[in-house]
Amino acid sequence: MTAYPVACFGQAGSYTYEAMLDYFAGQEIDPQYCSHFEDVIEAVSTQQARYGVVPIENSSTGGITDVYDLIHRYDCRVVGEKYVKVEHCLLGLPEASLEEITKVYSHPQGLDQCRSYLKQHPKWQLHPYFSTSQSAKIVSEEKNPAHAAIANKIAASMYGLKVFASHINDNTTNYTRFFIIAAAPEEIEKADKITLVLTTKHEPGALYHILGYFFYNGMNMTHLESRPIKGRPFEYFFHIDVMGSLADPVTHHVIHNLAGQCNYFKILGNYRSDQGGNYDEIRSHWG
Amino acid sequence: MTAYPVACFGQAGSYTYEAMLDYFAGQEIDPQYCSHFEDVIEAVSTQQARYGVVPIENSSTGGITDVYDLIHRYDCRVVGEKYVKVEHCLLGLPEASLEEITKVYSHPQGLDQCRSYLKQHPKWQLHPYFSTSQSAKIVSEEKNPAHAAIANKIAASMYGLKVFASHINDNTTNYTRFFIIAAAPEEIEKADKITLVLTTKHEPGALYHILGYFFYNGMNMTHLESRPIKGRPFEYFFHIDVMGSLADPVTHHVIHNLAGQCNYFKILGNYRSDQGGNYDEIRSHWG
Repeated sequence: MTAYPVACFGQAGSYTYEAMLDYFAGQEIDPQYCSHFEDVIEAVSTQQARYGVVPIENSSTGGITDVYDLIHRYDCRVVGEKYVKVEHCLLGLPEASLEEITKVYSHPQGLDQCRSYLKQHPKWQLHPYFSTSQSAKIVSEEKNPAHAAIANKIAASMYGLKVFASHINDNTTNYTRFFIIAAAPEEIEKADKITLVLTTKHEPGALYHILGYFFYNGMNMTHLESRPIKGRPFEYFFHIDVMGSLADPVTHHVIHNLAGQCNYFKILGNYRSDQGGNYDEIRSHWG
Repeated sequence: MTAYPVACFGQAGSYTYEAMLDYFAGQEIDPQYCSHFEDVIEAVSTQQARYGVVPIENSSTGGITDVYDLIHRYDCRVVGEKYVKVEHCLLGLPEASLEEITKVYSHPQGLDQCRSYLKQHPKWQLHPYFSTSQSAKIVSEEKNPAHAAIANKIAASMYGLKVFASHINDNTTNYTRFFIIAAAPEEIEKADKITLVLTTKHEPGALYHILGYFFYNGMNMTHLESRPIKGRPFEYFFHIDVMGSLADPVTHHVIHNLAGQCNYFKILGNYRSDQGGNYDEIRSHWG
Protein backbone atom coordinates (compact mmCIF):
# COMPACT_ATOMS: atom_id res chain seq x y z
CA MET A 1 0.00 0.00 0.00
CA THR A 2 1.41 3.40 -0.96
CA ALA A 3 1.26 6.24 1.54
CA TYR A 4 -1.53 8.86 1.16
CA PRO A 5 -0.28 12.36 0.45
CA VAL A 6 -1.71 14.56 3.26
CA ALA A 7 -1.42 18.37 3.16
CA CYS A 8 -0.76 19.75 6.65
CA PHE A 9 -0.91 23.41 7.72
CA GLY A 10 2.36 24.63 9.27
CA GLN A 11 5.53 22.60 9.72
CA ALA A 12 6.32 19.31 11.40
CA GLY A 13 5.85 20.01 15.11
CA SER A 14 2.73 22.18 14.77
CA TYR A 15 -0.57 21.58 16.54
CA THR A 16 -1.99 20.64 13.13
CA TYR A 17 0.81 18.05 12.85
CA GLU A 18 -0.30 16.61 16.20
CA ALA A 19 -3.90 16.43 14.93
CA MET A 20 -2.74 14.73 11.71
CA LEU A 21 -0.65 12.07 13.52
CA ASP A 22 -3.53 11.38 15.86
CA TYR A 23 -6.23 11.15 13.15
CA PHE A 24 -4.19 8.98 10.75
CA ALA A 25 -2.64 6.80 13.51
CA GLY A 26 -1.79 3.37 12.08
CA GLN A 27 -2.02 4.54 8.44
CA GLU A 28 0.87 5.26 6.08
CA ILE A 29 0.85 8.95 5.20
CA ASP A 30 3.16 11.22 3.24
CA PRO A 31 2.86 14.69 4.87
CA GLN A 32 3.17 17.80 2.69
CA TYR A 33 3.66 20.95 4.77
CA CYS A 34 2.01 24.22 3.69
CA SER A 35 2.63 27.73 5.06
CA HIS A 36 -0.82 29.11 4.24
CA PHE A 37 -4.33 27.77 4.81
CA GLU A 38 -5.04 28.36 1.13
CA ASP A 39 -2.13 26.12 0.05
CA VAL A 40 -3.56 23.19 2.03
CA ILE A 41 -7.03 23.63 0.58
CA GLU A 42 -5.69 24.13 -2.95
CA ALA A 43 -3.54 20.96 -2.71
CA VAL A 44 -6.65 19.00 -1.73
CA SER A 45 -8.94 20.58 -4.33
CA THR A 46 -6.43 19.89 -7.15
CA GLN A 47 -5.90 16.35 -5.75
CA GLN A 48 -2.18 16.84 -5.21
CA ALA A 49 -3.03 15.68 -1.71
CA ARG A 50 -5.69 13.10 -0.87
CA TYR A 51 -6.49 14.77 2.46
CA GLY A 52 -5.77 18.07 4.17
CA VAL A 53 -5.64 19.01 7.85
CA VAL A 54 -6.55 22.56 8.93
CA PRO A 55 -7.56 24.22 12.22
CA ILE A 56 -11.19 25.38 12.19
CA GLU A 57 -11.93 26.60 15.70
CA ASN A 58 -10.19 27.35 18.97
CA SER A 59 -12.09 27.09 22.23
CA SER A 60 -10.68 30.43 23.49
CA THR A 61 -10.38 32.62 20.42
CA GLY A 62 -13.17 31.21 18.27
CA GLY A 63 -13.67 30.23 14.66
CA ILE A 64 -10.71 30.41 12.29
CA THR A 65 -12.87 32.20 9.83
CA ASP A 66 -10.47 32.25 6.83
CA VAL A 67 -10.63 28.47 6.77
CA TYR A 68 -14.43 28.41 6.63
CA ASP A 69 -14.33 30.75 3.65
CA LEU A 70 -11.60 28.77 1.85
CA ILE A 71 -13.22 25.31 2.24
CA HIS A 72 -16.34 26.80 0.77
CA ARG A 73 -14.58 28.72 -2.03
CA TYR A 74 -12.56 25.65 -3.17
CA ASP A 75 -15.60 23.36 -2.92
CA CYS A 76 -13.90 20.90 -0.53
CA ARG A 77 -15.64 18.48 1.82
CA VAL A 78 -15.17 17.66 5.50
CA VAL A 79 -14.45 13.95 6.13
CA GLY A 80 -13.34 14.08 9.77
CA GLU A 81 -12.51 16.17 12.82
CA LYS A 82 -9.92 16.03 15.61
CA TYR A 83 -9.42 17.97 18.86
CA VAL A 84 -5.97 18.84 20.23
CA LYS A 85 -5.27 20.46 23.60
CA VAL A 86 -3.26 23.68 23.29
CA GLU A 87 -0.26 23.90 25.62
CA HIS A 88 1.86 26.86 24.60
CA CYS A 89 5.50 27.29 25.66
CA LEU A 90 8.03 30.10 25.24
CA LEU A 91 10.94 28.66 23.24
CA GLY A 92 14.41 30.08 22.53
CA LEU A 93 17.95 29.09 21.60
CA PRO A 94 19.61 26.63 24.02
CA GLU A 95 22.28 29.17 25.03
CA ALA A 96 19.87 32.14 25.40
CA SER A 97 18.55 33.59 28.67
CA LEU A 98 15.06 34.98 29.33
CA GLU A 99 16.54 38.42 30.16
CA GLU A 100 17.95 39.00 26.69
CA ILE A 101 14.70 38.37 24.78
CA THR A 102 13.46 41.35 22.75
CA LYS A 103 11.26 39.78 20.05
CA VAL A 104 8.64 37.00 20.18
CA TYR A 105 7.29 35.23 17.09
CA SER A 106 4.01 33.34 16.96
CA HIS A 107 0.79 32.91 15.02
CA PRO A 108 -1.55 35.84 15.90
CA GLN A 109 -3.79 33.38 17.79
CA GLY A 110 -0.73 32.14 19.73
CA LEU A 111 0.07 35.73 20.81
CA ASP A 112 -3.60 36.24 21.65
CA GLN A 113 -3.83 33.11 23.75
CA CYS A 114 -0.83 34.12 25.91
CA ARG A 115 -1.88 37.73 26.45
CA SER A 116 -1.57 37.70 30.27
CA TYR A 117 1.91 36.15 30.19
CA LEU A 118 3.06 38.60 27.51
CA LYS A 119 1.68 41.56 29.48
CA GLN A 120 4.25 40.75 32.20
CA HIS A 121 6.95 41.46 29.59
CA PRO A 122 5.79 44.73 28.05
CA LYS A 123 9.14 45.42 26.33
CA TRP A 124 9.03 42.35 24.11
CA GLN A 125 8.21 43.18 20.53
CA LEU A 126 5.45 40.85 19.33
CA HIS A 127 5.92 39.60 15.79
CA PRO A 128 2.88 37.91 14.19
CA TYR A 129 4.02 34.97 12.03
CA PHE A 130 2.51 32.28 9.79
CA SER A 131 2.20 29.49 12.38
CA THR A 132 3.51 28.45 15.79
CA SER A 133 5.80 25.80 14.29
CA GLN A 134 7.24 28.17 11.68
CA SER A 135 7.87 30.64 14.51
CA ALA A 136 9.97 27.98 16.27
CA LYS A 137 11.73 27.20 12.99
CA ILE A 138 12.67 30.82 12.24
CA VAL A 139 14.05 31.28 15.77
CA SER A 140 16.25 28.19 15.28
CA GLU A 141 17.42 29.50 11.89
CA GLU A 142 18.03 33.14 12.85
CA LYS A 143 20.28 31.97 15.73
CA ASN A 144 19.67 35.28 17.53
CA PRO A 145 19.44 34.69 21.32
CA ALA A 146 17.17 37.75 21.61
CA HIS A 147 14.48 36.00 19.52
CA ALA A 148 11.89 33.62 20.99
CA ALA A 149 8.78 31.80 19.77
CA ILE A 150 5.47 30.70 21.25
CA ALA A 151 4.81 27.10 20.14
CA ASN A 152 4.27 23.62 21.56
CA LYS A 153 6.79 21.23 23.17
CA ILE A 154 7.02 19.04 20.03
CA ALA A 155 8.35 22.09 18.15
CA ALA A 156 11.03 22.62 20.83
CA SER A 157 12.46 19.14 20.36
CA MET A 158 12.10 19.25 16.56
CA TYR A 159 13.97 22.53 16.19
CA GLY A 160 16.46 22.10 19.04
CA LEU A 161 15.03 24.91 21.17
CA LYS A 162 14.93 25.38 24.93
CA VAL A 163 11.64 25.70 26.86
CA PHE A 164 11.83 28.94 28.88
CA ALA A 165 8.30 28.61 30.21
CA SER A 166 5.50 26.13 29.65
CA HIS A 167 1.69 26.33 30.01
CA ILE A 168 1.80 30.06 29.31
CA ASN A 169 -1.66 30.21 27.74
CA ASP A 170 -4.17 32.35 29.68
CA ASN A 171 -6.59 29.52 29.64
CA THR A 172 -5.60 26.03 30.67
CA THR A 173 -8.65 24.39 29.10
CA ASN A 174 -7.88 25.44 25.57
CA TYR A 175 -8.53 23.14 22.61
CA THR A 176 -8.25 23.50 18.88
CA ARG A 177 -10.61 21.67 16.59
CA PHE A 178 -9.25 20.50 13.22
CA PHE A 179 -11.05 19.48 10.05
CA ILE A 180 -9.80 16.68 7.83
CA ILE A 181 -10.82 17.68 4.32
CA ALA A 182 -11.00 15.95 0.91
CA ALA A 183 -11.93 17.00 -2.64
CA ALA A 184 -15.18 14.98 -2.65
CA PRO A 185 -17.62 13.59 -0.05
CA GLU A 186 -16.75 10.17 1.42
CA GLU A 187 -19.12 7.64 2.88
CA ILE A 188 -17.97 7.20 6.45
CA GLU A 189 -19.01 4.38 8.74
CA LYS A 190 -20.68 5.49 11.98
CA ALA A 191 -20.81 9.11 10.76
CA ASP A 192 -22.70 11.10 13.44
CA LYS A 193 -22.00 14.78 12.72
CA ILE A 194 -23.11 16.93 9.76
CA THR A 195 -21.52 20.23 8.70
CA LEU A 196 -23.72 22.48 6.54
CA VAL A 197 -23.39 25.88 4.91
CA LEU A 198 -26.51 27.78 3.93
CA THR A 199 -28.05 31.18 3.31
CA THR A 200 -31.54 32.00 4.47
CA LYS A 201 -34.35 33.63 2.54
CA HIS A 202 -34.65 37.39 3.06
CA GLU A 203 -37.61 37.34 5.37
CA PRO A 204 -38.11 37.89 9.10
CA GLY A 205 -37.50 34.78 11.18
CA ALA A 206 -35.65 32.91 8.41
CA LEU A 207 -32.87 31.65 10.69
CA TYR A 208 -35.43 30.92 13.43
CA HIS A 209 -37.38 28.61 11.14
CA ILE A 210 -34.22 26.81 10.04
CA LEU A 211 -33.21 26.04 13.61
CA GLY A 212 -36.74 24.69 14.09
CA TYR A 213 -35.99 21.87 11.64
CA PHE A 214 -33.25 20.65 13.96
CA PHE A 215 -35.18 21.18 17.20
CA TYR A 216 -38.40 19.44 16.16
CA ASN A 217 -36.42 16.48 14.81
CA GLY A 218 -34.23 16.07 17.89
CA MET A 219 -31.00 17.00 16.08
CA ASN A 220 -28.58 18.69 18.48
CA MET A 221 -26.89 21.78 16.96
CA THR A 222 -23.30 22.01 18.28
CA HIS A 223 -22.01 25.04 16.36
CA LEU A 224 -23.23 28.07 14.43
CA GLU A 225 -20.87 30.52 12.74
CA SER A 226 -21.96 33.44 10.54
CA ARG A 227 -19.62 34.49 7.70
CA PRO A 228 -20.08 37.44 5.36
CA ILE A 229 -21.05 36.96 1.71
CA LYS A 230 -18.56 38.93 -0.41
CA GLY A 231 -20.19 41.57 -2.58
CA ARG A 232 -23.43 41.50 -0.56
CA PRO A 233 -22.67 43.73 2.42
CA PHE A 234 -24.06 42.46 5.72
CA GLU A 235 -25.63 39.29 4.36
CA TYR A 236 -24.31 36.00 5.76
CA PHE A 237 -23.50 32.38 5.13
CA PHE A 238 -24.34 30.26 8.19
CA HIS A 239 -21.99 27.36 8.93
CA ILE A 240 -23.87 24.88 11.12
CA ASP A 241 -22.85 21.61 12.80
CA VAL A 242 -25.59 19.22 13.88
CA MET A 243 -25.40 15.69 15.23
CA GLY A 244 -26.85 13.09 12.86
CA SER A 245 -26.19 10.61 10.06
CA LEU A 246 -27.43 10.97 6.49
CA ALA A 247 -27.62 7.17 6.39
CA ASP A 248 -30.59 7.50 8.77
CA PRO A 249 -33.71 7.96 6.56
CA VAL A 250 -35.36 10.44 8.96
CA THR A 251 -32.28 12.67 9.15
CA HIS A 252 -31.91 12.44 5.39
CA HIS A 253 -35.52 13.57 4.97
CA VAL A 254 -35.13 16.49 7.43
CA ILE A 255 -31.98 17.74 5.66
CA HIS A 256 -33.67 17.40 2.27
CA ASN A 257 -36.69 19.44 3.42
CA LEU A 258 -34.46 22.03 5.05
CA ALA A 259 -32.53 22.51 1.79
CA GLY A 260 -35.78 23.57 0.11
CA GLN A 261 -36.21 26.38 2.67
CA CYS A 262 -32.81 27.96 1.97
CA ASN A 263 -31.58 30.26 -0.79
CA TYR A 264 -28.31 28.34 -0.83
CA PHE A 265 -27.61 24.99 0.81
CA LYS A 266 -24.65 22.64 0.79
CA ILE A 267 -23.66 19.61 2.89
CA LEU A 268 -19.94 20.08 3.59
CA GLY A 269 -19.65 16.68 5.21
CA ASN A 270 -21.07 13.88 7.34
CA TYR A 271 -18.31 12.37 9.45
CA ARG A 272 -17.55 10.66 12.71
CA SER A 273 -17.30 13.16 15.60
CA ASP A 274 -14.17 13.18 17.75
CA GLN A 275 -15.58 12.36 21.16
CA GLY A 276 -12.75 14.29 22.77
CA GLY A 277 -10.25 11.43 23.16
CA ASN A 278 -8.88 11.61 26.67
CA TYR A 279 -10.23 15.10 27.22
CA ASP A 280 -12.88 14.84 29.91
CA GLU A 281 -13.54 18.56 29.68
CA ILE A 282 -14.82 18.19 26.15
CA ARG A 283 -16.48 14.82 26.57
CA SER A 284 -18.61 16.05 29.45
CA HIS A 285 -19.99 18.71 27.16
CA TRP A 286 -21.36 16.29 24.58
CA GLY A 287 -23.91 14.84 27.03
CA MET B 1 -17.72 73.81 26.08
CA THR B 2 -14.59 71.69 26.46
CA ALA B 3 -13.77 69.04 23.89
CA TYR B 4 -14.63 65.39 24.66
CA PRO B 5 -11.65 63.07 24.87
CA VAL B 6 -12.33 60.30 22.30
CA ALA B 7 -10.10 57.21 22.09
CA CYS B 8 -9.60 56.16 18.46
CA PHE B 9 -8.07 52.89 17.19
CA GLY B 10 -5.05 53.46 14.92
CA GLN B 11 -3.60 56.81 13.93
CA ALA B 12 -4.98 59.94 12.34
CA GLY B 13 -5.82 58.88 8.79
CA SER B 14 -7.18 55.43 9.64
CA TYR B 15 -10.62 54.15 8.65
CA THR B 16 -11.53 54.40 12.34
CA TYR B 17 -10.50 58.07 12.18
CA GLU B 18 -12.89 58.54 9.24
CA ALA B 19 -15.69 56.91 11.26
CA MET B 20 -14.91 59.15 14.27
CA LEU B 21 -14.93 62.40 12.24
CA ASP B 22 -18.19 61.36 10.61
CA TYR B 23 -19.95 60.32 13.84
CA PHE B 24 -18.86 63.37 15.87
CA ALA B 25 -19.29 65.87 12.99
CA GLY B 26 -20.05 69.32 14.43
CA GLN B 27 -18.85 68.41 17.94
CA GLU B 28 -15.57 69.42 19.60
CA ILE B 29 -13.50 66.30 20.23
CA ASP B 30 -10.00 65.68 21.48
CA PRO B 31 -8.81 62.46 19.73
CA GLN B 32 -6.49 60.08 21.59
CA TYR B 33 -4.91 57.51 19.26
CA CYS B 34 -4.36 53.92 20.45
CA SER B 35 -2.33 51.16 18.75
CA HIS B 36 -4.32 48.27 20.21
CA PHE B 37 -8.03 47.57 20.50
CA GLU B 38 -7.55 46.90 24.20
CA ASP B 39 -6.04 50.37 24.78
CA VAL B 40 -9.16 52.04 23.33
CA ILE B 41 -11.51 49.95 25.46
CA GLU B 42 -9.38 50.41 28.59
CA ALA B 43 -9.27 54.22 28.10
CA VAL B 44 -13.08 54.24 27.92
CA SER B 45 -13.59 51.86 30.85
CA THR B 46 -11.26 53.90 33.11
CA GLN B 47 -12.93 57.11 31.85
CA GLN B 48 -9.70 58.60 30.51
CA ALA B 49 -11.77 58.94 27.34
CA ARG B 50 -15.49 59.73 27.26
CA TYR B 51 -16.01 57.71 24.08
CA GLY B 52 -14.08 55.16 22.05
CA VAL B 53 -14.28 54.22 18.37
CA VAL B 54 -13.45 50.64 17.28
CA PRO B 55 -14.14 48.51 14.18
CA ILE B 56 -16.54 45.66 14.92
CA GLU B 57 -17.28 44.03 11.57
CA ASN B 58 -16.16 44.09 7.96
CA SER B 59 -18.57 43.16 5.20
CA SER B 60 -15.95 40.95 3.47
CA THR B 61 -13.91 39.41 6.28
CA GLY B 62 -16.51 39.30 9.04
CA GLY B 63 -16.66 40.09 12.74
CA ILE B 64 -13.59 41.59 14.41
CA THR B 65 -13.93 39.10 17.15
CA ASP B 66 -11.28 40.45 19.55
CA VAL B 67 -13.33 43.61 19.89
CA TYR B 68 -16.50 41.72 20.84
CA ASP B 69 -14.57 39.94 23.57
CA LEU B 70 -12.93 43.14 24.87
CA ILE B 71 -16.13 45.25 25.06
CA HIS B 72 -17.65 42.45 27.07
CA ARG B 73 -14.60 41.86 29.29
CA TYR B 74 -14.26 45.59 30.17
CA ASP B 75 -18.01 45.98 30.72
CA CYS B 76 -18.36 48.83 28.19
CA ARG B 77 -21.55 49.87 26.41
CA VAL B 78 -22.38 50.62 22.78
CA VAL B 79 -23.82 54.10 22.25
CA GLY B 80 -23.61 54.36 18.46
CA GLU B 81 -22.51 52.81 15.17
CA LYS B 82 -21.03 54.10 11.92
CA TYR B 83 -20.32 52.52 8.51
CA VAL B 84 -17.30 53.49 6.39
CA LYS B 85 -16.63 52.27 2.85
CA VAL B 86 -13.22 50.58 2.52
CA GLU B 87 -11.13 51.83 -0.40
CA HIS B 88 -7.61 50.47 -0.07
CA CYS B 89 -4.62 51.93 -1.92
CA LEU B 90 -1.00 50.88 -2.22
CA LEU B 91 1.11 53.73 -0.82
CA GLY B 92 4.86 54.36 -0.98
CA LEU B 93 7.49 57.09 -0.75
CA PRO B 94 7.05 59.92 -3.30
CA GLU B 95 10.37 59.11 -5.01
CA ALA B 96 9.82 55.30 -5.08
CA SER B 97 8.76 53.19 -8.07
CA LEU B 98 6.46 50.16 -8.07
CA GLU B 99 9.27 47.95 -9.43
CA GLU B 100 11.50 48.36 -6.38
CA ILE B 101 8.90 47.33 -3.78
CA THR B 102 9.86 44.25 -1.73
CA LYS B 103 7.80 44.60 1.47
CA VAL B 104 4.19 45.59 2.09
CA TYR B 105 2.82 46.57 5.52
CA SER B 106 -0.84 46.48 6.49
CA HIS B 107 -3.31 45.27 9.08
CA PRO B 108 -3.93 41.51 8.54
CA GLN B 109 -7.47 42.33 7.35
CA GLY B 110 -6.01 44.88 4.90
CA LEU B 111 -3.72 42.18 3.42
CA ASP B 112 -6.67 39.79 3.36
CA GLN B 113 -8.93 42.23 1.56
CA CYS B 114 -6.38 42.80 -1.25
CA ARG B 115 -5.51 39.14 -1.82
CA SER B 116 -6.09 39.12 -5.61
CA TYR B 117 -4.00 42.27 -6.17
CA LEU B 118 -1.19 40.92 -3.96
CA LYS B 119 -1.23 37.57 -5.78
CA GLN B 120 -0.12 39.45 -8.94
CA HIS B 121 3.05 40.40 -7.01
CA PRO B 122 4.12 37.09 -5.47
CA LYS B 123 7.62 38.34 -4.59
CA TRP B 124 6.41 41.00 -2.18
CA GLN B 125 6.94 40.06 1.44
CA LEU B 126 3.71 40.69 3.36
CA HIS B 127 4.22 42.20 6.79
CA PRO B 128 1.17 42.14 9.12
CA TYR B 129 1.06 45.36 11.18
CA PHE B 130 -1.08 47.00 13.86
CA SER B 131 -3.34 49.08 11.59
CA THR B 132 -3.53 50.45 8.04
CA SER B 133 -2.68 53.98 9.19
CA GLN B 134 0.31 52.83 11.27
CA SER B 135 1.49 50.92 8.22
CA ALA B 136 1.46 54.19 6.23
CA LYS B 137 3.23 55.95 9.10
CA ILE B 138 6.05 53.40 9.39
CA VAL B 139 6.66 53.53 5.61
CA SER B 140 6.98 57.33 5.84
CA GLU B 141 9.38 56.98 8.81
CA GLU B 142 11.56 54.16 7.48
CA LYS B 143 12.18 56.18 4.27
CA ASN B 144 13.01 52.94 2.42
CA PRO B 145 11.68 53.11 -1.18
CA ALA B 146 11.33 49.30 -1.18
CA HIS B 147 8.64 49.51 1.55
CA ALA B 148 4.95 50.12 0.84
CA ALA B 149 1.69 50.12 2.82
CA ILE B 150 -1.93 49.26 2.16
CA ALA B 151 -4.08 52.04 3.61
CA ASN B 152 -6.66 54.64 2.59
CA LYS B 153 -6.16 57.90 0.66
CA ILE B 154 -6.41 60.06 3.81
CA ALA B 155 -3.32 58.24 5.15
CA ALA B 156 -1.42 59.04 1.92
CA SER B 157 -1.94 62.77 2.31
CA MET B 158 -1.34 62.69 6.08
CA TYR B 159 2.00 60.90 5.84
CA GLY B 160 3.20 62.43 2.54
CA LEU B 161 3.02 59.17 0.57
CA LYS B 162 2.33 58.51 -3.10
CA VAL B 163 -0.62 56.43 -4.29
CA PHE B 164 0.79 53.64 -6.51
CA ALA B 165 -2.61 52.00 -7.04
CA SER B 166 -6.09 52.69 -5.72
CA HIS B 167 -9.22 50.52 -5.27
CA ILE B 168 -7.03 47.44 -4.87
CA ASN B 169 -9.49 45.61 -2.63
CA ASP B 170 -10.88 42.36 -4.11
CA ASN B 171 -14.34 43.52 -3.35
CA THR B 172 -15.56 46.96 -4.33
CA THR B 173 -18.60 46.83 -2.05
CA ASN B 174 -16.65 46.53 1.16
CA TYR B 175 -17.72 48.34 4.34
CA THR B 176 -16.50 48.40 7.89
CA ARG B 177 -18.93 48.88 10.75
CA PHE B 178 -17.67 50.77 13.81
CA PHE B 179 -19.02 50.90 17.36
CA ILE B 180 -18.94 54.07 19.43
CA ILE B 181 -18.51 52.88 23.01
CA ALA B 182 -18.82 54.47 26.47
CA ALA B 183 -18.29 53.29 30.06
CA ALA B 184 -22.01 53.36 30.89
CA PRO B 185 -25.31 53.14 28.97
CA GLU B 186 -26.67 56.42 27.56
CA GLU B 187 -30.25 57.31 26.79
CA ILE B 188 -30.28 58.06 23.08
CA GLU B 189 -33.10 59.83 21.26
CA LYS B 190 -34.60 57.82 18.38
CA ALA B 191 -32.59 54.71 19.37
CA ASP B 192 -33.72 51.89 17.06
CA LYS B 193 -31.09 49.14 17.37
CA ILE B 194 -30.28 46.92 20.36
CA THR B 195 -27.04 44.96 20.85
CA LEU B 196 -27.26 42.04 23.29
CA VAL B 197 -24.87 39.40 24.59
CA LEU B 198 -26.29 36.22 26.09
CA THR B 199 -25.69 32.56 26.82
CA THR B 200 -28.42 29.99 26.38
CA LYS B 201 -29.53 27.26 28.77
CA HIS B 202 -27.95 23.86 28.09
CA GLU B 203 -30.91 22.27 26.47
CA PRO B 204 -31.83 21.32 22.91
CA GLY B 205 -33.38 24.16 20.93
CA ALA B 206 -32.21 26.87 23.36
CA LEU B 207 -31.04 29.26 20.61
CA TYR B 208 -34.11 28.40 18.53
CA HIS B 209 -36.43 29.51 21.34
CA ILE B 210 -34.50 32.75 21.83
CA LEU B 211 -34.82 33.71 18.18
CA GLY B 212 -38.56 33.02 18.55
CA TYR B 213 -38.84 35.98 20.96
CA PHE B 214 -37.69 38.28 18.18
CA PHE B 215 -39.70 36.65 15.40
CA TYR B 216 -43.06 36.55 17.21
CA ASN B 217 -42.63 40.16 18.27
CA GLY B 218 -41.68 41.47 14.84
CA MET B 219 -38.14 42.43 15.87
CA ASN B 220 -35.78 42.08 12.90
CA MET B 221 -32.46 40.41 13.83
CA THR B 222 -29.65 41.98 11.77
CA HIS B 223 -26.61 40.15 13.17
CA LEU B 224 -25.66 37.04 15.14
CA GLU B 225 -22.07 36.26 16.13
CA SER B 226 -21.01 33.32 18.32
CA ARG B 227 -17.94 33.80 20.53
CA PRO B 228 -16.30 31.17 22.73
CA ILE B 229 -16.57 31.30 26.52
CA LYS B 230 -13.04 31.02 27.93
CA GLY B 231 -12.56 28.05 30.23
CA ARG B 232 -15.71 26.33 28.98
CA PRO B 233 -14.60 24.64 25.77
CA PHE B 234 -17.10 24.82 22.92
CA GLU B 235 -19.74 26.80 24.78
CA TYR B 236 -20.63 30.20 23.33
CA PHE B 237 -21.69 33.77 24.00
CA PHE B 238 -24.11 34.96 21.33
CA HIS B 239 -23.81 38.59 20.28
CA ILE B 240 -27.10 39.64 18.70
CA ASP B 241 -28.30 42.87 17.04
CA VAL B 242 -32.04 43.44 16.72
CA MET B 243 -34.00 46.47 15.58
CA GLY B 244 -36.02 48.10 18.37
CA SER B 245 -36.15 50.73 21.10
CA LEU B 246 -36.23 49.98 24.82
CA ALA B 247 -38.33 53.16 25.20
CA ASP B 248 -41.13 51.22 23.49
CA PRO B 249 -43.03 49.35 26.28
CA VAL B 250 -43.65 46.23 24.15
CA THR B 251 -39.97 45.88 23.16
CA HIS B 252 -38.99 46.50 26.76
CA HIS B 253 -41.30 43.71 27.88
CA VAL B 254 -40.00 41.26 25.23
CA ILE B 255 -36.38 41.92 26.18
CA HIS B 256 -37.21 41.54 29.88
CA ASN B 257 -38.93 38.17 29.27
CA LEU B 258 -36.10 36.99 27.05
CA ALA B 259 -33.54 37.78 29.79
CA GLY B 260 -35.35 35.30 32.06
CA GLN B 261 -34.80 32.52 29.49
CA CYS B 262 -31.00 32.95 29.35
CA ASN B 263 -28.21 31.77 31.63
CA TYR B 264 -26.46 35.10 31.07
CA PHE B 265 -27.96 38.22 29.54
CA LYS B 266 -26.70 41.76 29.05
CA ILE B 267 -27.90 44.71 27.00
CA LEU B 268 -24.71 46.19 25.51
CA GLY B 269 -26.56 49.16 24.08
CA ASN B 270 -29.63 50.71 22.49
CA TYR B 271 -28.57 53.29 19.92
CA ARG B 272 -29.51 54.95 16.68
CA SER B 273 -28.63 52.77 13.66
CA ASP B 274 -26.48 54.25 10.91
CA GLN B 275 -28.81 54.01 7.94
CA GLY B 276 -25.79 53.75 5.66
CA GLY B 277 -25.31 57.45 4.88
CA ASN B 278 -24.82 57.78 1.14
CA TYR B 279 -24.23 54.07 0.70
CA ASP B 280 -27.15 52.77 -1.34
CA GLU B 281 -25.76 49.24 -1.22
CA ILE B 282 -26.22 49.11 2.54
CA ARG B 283 -29.42 51.13 2.65
CA SER B 284 -31.17 48.81 0.23
CA HIS B 285 -30.45 45.95 2.60
CA TRP B 286 -32.33 47.48 5.54
CA GLY B 287 -35.72 47.26 3.79
